[in-house]
Amino acid sequence: MDCASRLTGFAAEFETAFEAALHEKMENAPPRLGEAVRHAALAGGKRIRPFLVHECASLFTSAGQDTRSAAFAIECVHCYSLVHDDLPAMDDDAMRRGKPTVHIAFDEATAILAGDCLLTLAFEYLSSCRDTGPLSAILARASGGAGMVGGQLLDLAAEGRFGGGEAGDTATVIRRIQSMKTGALITAACEMGAITAGASDGQRRALGEYGSHIGLAFQIADDLLDAEGDAAKLGKAVGKDAHAGKATFVGMLGVEGARKRLGETVESARGVLGGLPGNTAMLSDLAGYIATRDR
Amino acid sequence: MDCASRLTGFAAEFETAFEAALHEKMENAPPRLGEAVRHAALAGGKRIRPFLVHECASLFTSAGQDTRSAAFAIECVHCYSLVHDDLPAMDDDAMRRGKPTVHIAFDEATAILAGDCLLTLAFEYLSSCRDTGPLSAILARASGGAGMVGGQLLDLAAEGRFGGGEAGDTATVIRRIQSMKTGALITAACEMGAITAGASDGQRRALGEYGSHIGLAFQIADDLLDAEGDAAKLGKAVGKDAHAGKATFVGMLGVEGARKRLGETVESARGVLGGLPGNTAMLSDLAGYIATRDR
Repeated sequence: MDCASRLTGFAAEFETAFEAALHEKMENAPPRLGEAVRHAALAGGKRIRPFLVHECASLFTSAGQDTRSAAFAIECVHCYSLVHDDLPAMDDDAMRRGKPTVHIAFDEATAILAGDCLLTLAFEYLSSCRDTGPLSAILARASGGAGMVGGQLLDLAAEGRFGGGEAGDTATVIRRIQSMKTGALITAACEMGAITAGASDGQRRALGEYGSHIGLAFQIADDLLDAEGDAAKLGKAVGKDAHAGKATFVGMLGVEGARKRLGETVESARGVLGGLPGNTAMLSDLAGYIATRDR
Repeated sequence: MDCASRLTGFAAEFETAFEAALHEKMENAPPRLGEAVRHAALAGGKRIRPFLVHECASLFTSAGQDTRSAAFAIECVHCYSLVHDDLPAMDDDAMRRGKPTVHIAFDEATAILAGDCLLTLAFEYLSSCRDTGPLSAILARASGGAGMVGGQLLDLAAEGRFGGGEAGDTATVIRRIQSMKTGALITAACEMGAITAGASDGQRRALGEYGSHIGLAFQIADDLLDAEGDAAKLGKAVGKDAHAGKATFVGMLGVEGARKRLGETVESARGVLGGLPGNTAMLSDLAGYIATRDR
């Protein structure tokens, strides 16, 4: 089965399991909050992060409950970050994946709280795992001030939101923002999959390295998609990031330069798979898939 | 030493330790985010939740690193909740403890991200503990959709924010909002202190029950303070909650009725301390202190 089919099949199964898992956790929450959380979390999406958790774990063992919990956790964090990033005070997006964003479908207060709820749920899912400590440490570092949340702040700073200065506009800064905002969580997904499957520290580190390469590939591909894509595929206004003055690889390297960098990054990702056990073919395909998705 | 002096002494020590702990965790975060987190977390405050963690643990053993980590975690959650509750889309408060709130001192986007960062940090602190799983489970449930975050949504609903209906206005609803919004985290503080000190399940439950009584006392005292207090002591506009149509115990029972309920609640809290080991005098004093604070 090719990577795209496998991911599609995984996403469909994940959707069902995630819906049931959220239903259970939100039973005692106010109905409006449960609806907003479902709107944010069950909006489709490619489910690449939980897929990575699952595929990395599958190198070592068949997926068990801890792998599923880690997959729910990382997707909760990803979904919360979209809800908060879309808020009027942040990127002010009204549409996401062809649907109204949470603050449009509900209201701003509910959107802030639904995001908070999803972030909290992530760590609740991890709390039932055998290795809660290492899993929580990895997820928290990847999504906190030195990771995703810090990257979002630097991204806003690069737009000149806070009077400029903090982020600058060099290639190093763009790479740093990408690495914090997108790469950290993708790296964490790979490492968390390894941990839930009982991988060694060395194996976990190798998968983390793979994750950091495909995280970079993911962001370059996203920038190219934004620069070249069509609105129907992305479900958001095309060229919005570029118009908003956001730091992008296309802005830094041009379209051709970004494509070249993307190819090199995919090869780097594949390069670290050699030392790992199990069938790494799917992870190799996934690196290529990420570079060509939706084109 | 009386309770107020002990709490004051604890708060001073906690402030120093918390500042150092936050400094370490925020070293690799963007400076602006670190400053906003410090503004939110080091704004003084009574530090009642970490004090509860510490005092409950002290019944069983002298406080170790896990007790300190749990105390940092619960205060991170409390501080994040204040930052998000103060946002224009929520309670729209410009002042807190006599200082500008985070979105006033910085901006809305930074305030949202500083709150997200503090919530994430809470679980990072717990990740290094021996019992990360149970501690994370308790903290996540207390602060999530069936706890603090859900309580804040019901509180906004009770104001009629979402077209009314969800919360209603009966005594049961007021009690439920209080229990979710304030009580759950105070209960969690007591249980987390017990866990970090190796208490039995029964002892943990007894301290949780104590916590739920003093959480209720805390909220009734807060409502009375809001109805009767003076602005200088509270550092916010007096009567604001009542004017905003918020569900309060004073609104439900009147000032005298609320005072009577407060006294009964303190006695209930003291009632569960009998079966616990160690010197419970401080916890007994604390129940009374909470009922009379700032008056």
